[in-house]
Amino acid sequence: MSEILRLGRLELRVLDLEESVKYYTNVIGLEVTGREENRVYLKAWDEYDHHSIILQKSDTAGMDHMAFKVKDIYELEKLEYKIEQFGCKLSRISKGARLAEGEAVRFQLPTGHHMELYTEIEQVGTKTGNLNPDPWPDGLKGIAPHRLDHALLTGDDLKTATRFFTEVLGFRQTEKIVTVDGEDLVGSFMSVTNKGHDLAFVKGPDAKFHHAGFYVDNWYEVLKAADILTKNNVQAEVTPTRHGITRGLTVYFFDPSGNRNEAYTSGYMSYADFPTITWTEDKIGTGIFYHRRELIESFSKALT
Amino acid sequence: MSEILRLGRLELRVLDLEESVKYYTNVIGLEVTGREENRVYLKAWDEYDHHSIILQKSDTAGMDHMAFKVKDIYELEKLEYKIEQFGCKLSRISKGARLAEGEAVRFQLPTGHHMELYTEIEQVGTKTGNLNPDPWPDGLKGIAPHRLDHALLTGDDLKTATRFFTEVLGFRQTEKIVTVDGEDLVGSFMSVTNKGHDLAFVKGPDAKFHHAGFYVDNWYEVLKAADILTKNNVQAEVTPTRHGITRGLTVYFFDPSGNRNEAYTSGYMSYADFPTITWTEDKIGTGIFYHRRELIESFSKALT
Amino acid sequence: MSEILRLGRLELRVLDLEESVKYYTNVIGLEVTGREENRVYLKAWDEYDHHSIILQKSDTAGMDHMAFKVKDIYELEKLEYKIEQFGCKLSRISKGARLAEGEAVRFQLPTGHHMELYTEIEQVGTKTGNLNPDPWPDGLKGIAPHRLDHALLTGDDLKTATRFFTEVLGFRQTEKIVTVDGEDLVGSFMSVTNKGHDLAFVKGPDAKFHHAGFYVDNWYEVLKAADILTKNNVQAEVTPTRHGITRGLTVYFFDPSGNRNEAYTSGYMSYADFPTITWTEDKIGTGIFYHRRELIESFSKALT
Amino acid sequence: MSEILRLGRLELRVLDLEESVKYYTNVIGLEVTGREENRVYLKAWDEYDHHSIILQKSDTAGMDHMAFKVKDIYELEKLEYKIEQFGCKLSRISKGARLAEGEAVRFQLPTGHHMELYTEIEQVGTKTGNLNPDPWPDGLKGIAPHRLDHALLTGDDLKTATRFFTEVLGFRQTEKIVTVDGEDLVGSFMSVTNKGHDLAFVKGPDAKFHHAGFYVDNWYEVLKAADILTKNNVQAEVTPTRHGITRGLTVYFFDPSGNRNEAYTSGYMSYADFPTITWTEDKIGTGIFYHRRELIESFSKALT
Repeated sequence: MSEILRLGRLELRVLDLEESVKYYTNVIGLEVTGREENRVYLKAWDEYDHHSIILQKSDTAGMDHMAFKVKDIYELEKLEYKIEQFGCKLSRISKGARLAEGEAVRFQLPTGHHMELYTEIEQVGTKTGNLNPDPWPDGLKGIAPHRLDHALLTGDDLKTATRFFTEVLGFRQTEKIVTVDGEDLVGSFMSVTNKGHDLAFVKGPDAKFHHAGFYVDNWYEVLKAADILTKNNVQAEVTPTRHGITRGLTVYFFDPSGNRNEAYTSGYMSYADFPTITWTEDKIGTGIFYHRRELIESFSKALT
Repeated sequence: MSEILRLGRLELRVLDLEESVKYYTNVIGLEVTGREENRVYLKAWDEYDHHSIILQKSDTAGMDHMAFKVKDIYELEKLEYKIEQFGCKLSRISKGARLAEGEAVRFQLPTGHHMELYTEIEQVGTKTGNLNPDPWPDGLKGIAPHRLDHALLTGDDLKTATRFFTEVLGFRQTEKIVTVDGEDLVGSFMSVTNKGHDLAFVKGPDAKFHHAGFYVDNWYEVLKAADILTKNNVQAEVTPTRHGITRGLTVYFFDPSGNRNEAYTSGYMSYADFPTITWTEDKIGTGIFYHRRELIESFSKALT
Repeated sequence: MSEILRLGRLELRVLDLEESVKYYTNVIGLEVTGREENRVYLKAWDEYDHHSIILQKSDTAGMDHMAFKVKDIYELEKLEYKIEQFGCKLSRISKGARLAEGEAVRFQLPTGHHMELYTEIEQVGTKTGNLNPDPWPDGLKGIAPHRLDHALLTGDDLKTATRFFTEVLGFRQTEKIVTVDGEDLVGSFMSVTNKGHDLAFVKGPDAKFHHAGFYVDNWYEVLKAADILTKNNVQAEVTPTRHGITRGLTVYFFDPSGNRNEAYTSGYMSYADFPTITWTEDKIGTGIFYHRRELIESFSKALT
Repeated sequence: MSEILRLGRLELRVLDLEESVKYYTNVIGLEVTGREENRVYLKAWDEYDHHSIILQKSDTAGMDHMAFKVKDIYELEKLEYKIEQFGCKLSRISKGARLAEGEAVRFQLPTGHHMELYTEIEQVGTKTGNLNPDPWPDGLKGIAPHRLDHALLTGDDLKTATRFFTEVLGFRQTEKIVTVDGEDLVGSFMSVTNKGHDLAFVKGPDAKFHHAGFYVDNWYEVLKAADILTKNNVQAEVTPTRHGITRGLTVYFFDPSGNRNEAYTSGYMSYADFPTITWTEDKIGTGIFYHRRELIESFSKALT
């Protein structure tokens, strides 16, 4: 088991910062917790850290970096050492480089994505508080997910990516998609918690972002999410369905810059002894979209 | 208000009777209540009449007829007279022509479909019974809908079809789809009960069958239905979503002969003073598939 | 089948008008559509008539009257005649006596309750409108039921009450509770629509009000309703459960004056040929509270 | 973070073994995976280890022991050492003492309960398998939980118990109930995974068992569980509701020997930095039963 707690934040590049803030607050229903000239910081209602999403004004869409929160500074240093040993080039992001954050270790994945590990971030708490709390706060807006749940990225060499996450960072591979001959890995779903996945890679161009998954409570909330999209004139890419992989329930759509978002729920718990599930590529349609049973073109093409 | 109780039965033509019975019992989860050489009679668990679906062995798929149950013989005769006045040619189906049925009045709609009205049918009751009943019986299989809910047909002259059902049979039009200029009617949803629709027509070739809708209890049952399809290797045509029209929640698929089925739930109650809802054809995508917001080709093309 | 459309309104007596308005708008989530000195008019978001609930400032809690909407003036006159024949004393409420209402016929039931029939009321429509409508409007508050669904009253002579509603007003008895010897009627559930019940009586003191049922969409909405009660410091009398009778899903609670409210969903459809369900009094616990299987004291004692 | 994977099994003492097997297979819906003269081994459909519940024929009801699965033998030995240091007396259960199990370390908690740690157990897998699996298997019966979820025990000295689990075994305290003066701990909810709790103690007699929680997927499954209880004539102690503590959705009932069971779902994810939630004893009613807002007598009295 790893000393990494969770996917703590995603910094997404967006084209129009104000339009994006509107979308992430009104449609997704996140709360703005901080602003800088070119960045807006947001959190979901059930998260207690200062932010889980950073929107960065940019000329291109995509993911600036994803960051996992580590238990403490000792574990962070251990991981730093192991990452270096693996051959990744590291740099330090200094405290205060971004709002409410402590120091972070930044490095590039074999797939070209930028990743950070950190342990310090200001805790702002939730509106329900920690004393005799209600189960949910008043005034929720939009899809109102509980939290940022997972990220999915594309890359070319998924074996190396998987090896990095499992051997260096202590993730477990919960599911994988392999070519029918069993030779190649075309999808790799990994967890560093008891969730079905915290991070996944599917075969595709390096350094590209596929989607950010936000957790909602149940299948009715997935319906509500899909309704809210249409009410707000946001096109659903994939309407409510189940994944074969992770068993999760889902709806997919895009932010105004074309970054894909997902409202996701359910799925199983995984433990350290979870026997990895294998999907063969001929069943990838069912694996990804359990009801449709085939991929749709945009799903592999629309990347940022 | 009409003296017509409900859509009581559909007789569907199927190509392979045994394969169809397997499908309607294992996948849909209906119960066989009678058999003849070329017909099998089925009912849903929450229906008390002898059957609501008749499968008829045939060389072509499609709907032999749909039949509405009428309150009593006096009302049946009144309706017979009005139908004749409207100009439809009527015939009598004699008692016992089909299993467990009394006499029926049969006629052809302006759209070419065959329809029947009847008042007598054997009541076999439900497994939960009428004395201190449990809310659902043990041993349910498959999608296990409560009941046959509605039918959707295609036809060319929807104004006349609507006039027939509203003026002669006492249906109310709850929703309609009109061309943007308001001139033409391309969809007509009608109810003879407090449901959002019991019968609908969409513009298309005369005498064709679009789908039979079966009622399930809730959105989780729609998910279960969709899961069961994939588990049984039955292709979903439309994965779980909401209709704009009727607000209903739905999944579409086909029986082995290509007759379209729907597992449907939710939707509003309508009353005699319900103000008809209008959809303009430019919004038909949202009207039919609220989340996808556009039609899919098969949905208008695949008819039996 | 009757020409009565539905339970159109309840006028409830409340002790503190402003506190009650706060409760019915914030907790129940109705919308105020009119105000007079001693009355406030409210409707649910999915109702198109001007109001379904009238709160009347009074010294005692309870139901001033319930009113059913009739198809047209001809049917209203027919019913008036039949009611008089039955022996009830009638009076006319003149147009404008209450806001937005036309003329009404008022009479006293054999159980002592006041009832009205009417056909005219201003239609104010819904926020989703009738042109390419969304399935639900923005800005919903509280429990946000779709509509007023049914009323439950107490009375001594339920046989006569049932006879009045079935023979004079065209209701059907969908379920009944009888003493074990079958002699006495201690509960009578009646429908004038395709719902499982629009009105019910349970054995108890004459002229008393048991509860007003509001319709919510599904079991998750019942949970949300129960959560909202606690968040607003409103005591639930009966926490989320199922009724054996009607199969409905429910939570019970009280308005600030002690009038019982219910958030209700699901339940079956009933038709004119629905075989009445019988509950024997020894199973009344299961009939009322399917999971608890016994009555609670307040449920029969707390009446207004 | 701990190297303990999860609550792996409970051995429950039951009075009538065959009656209990019937209950745990038909009502709960577990599957029998092994039998000995005085023990029956069962697992839930979504568990891959050989068993999670052992029923042991006995003269008294209650919990023989609970056992947590540990990552590997090295961690098991480390924990063994730490437990001994804490002052608990340990013994070794030899491989094969119970069916399909490897060696285990057994010790007594400060509260008098017997606990075991183990790492070896035969993996029998699930019916959906690990190759292109369906999300759920056919043939499920009864409540059909995914897995054993958590246990709740009573004890006198909850501070010491909490210290043992957090300091020795690496659990985190996610929620606690304290007396209003903050002096005493009367409830302690602890997690060794990302769940809201894996184990909890409430103030009460030492060495007593409160309940075993089984995980179901959603609030509709809680309803189904409650329906199944009544259909099987099993009395629900607490009908469907929400906990304030853990936010979980729940129904409580008893096995034929009086051991309390729970069908449980939802609740939050917890991480190593989760800020412990505090409930003050004056709010314990709301904490335990969020909708009822007060305890019921049996809930603290009925222990085995």
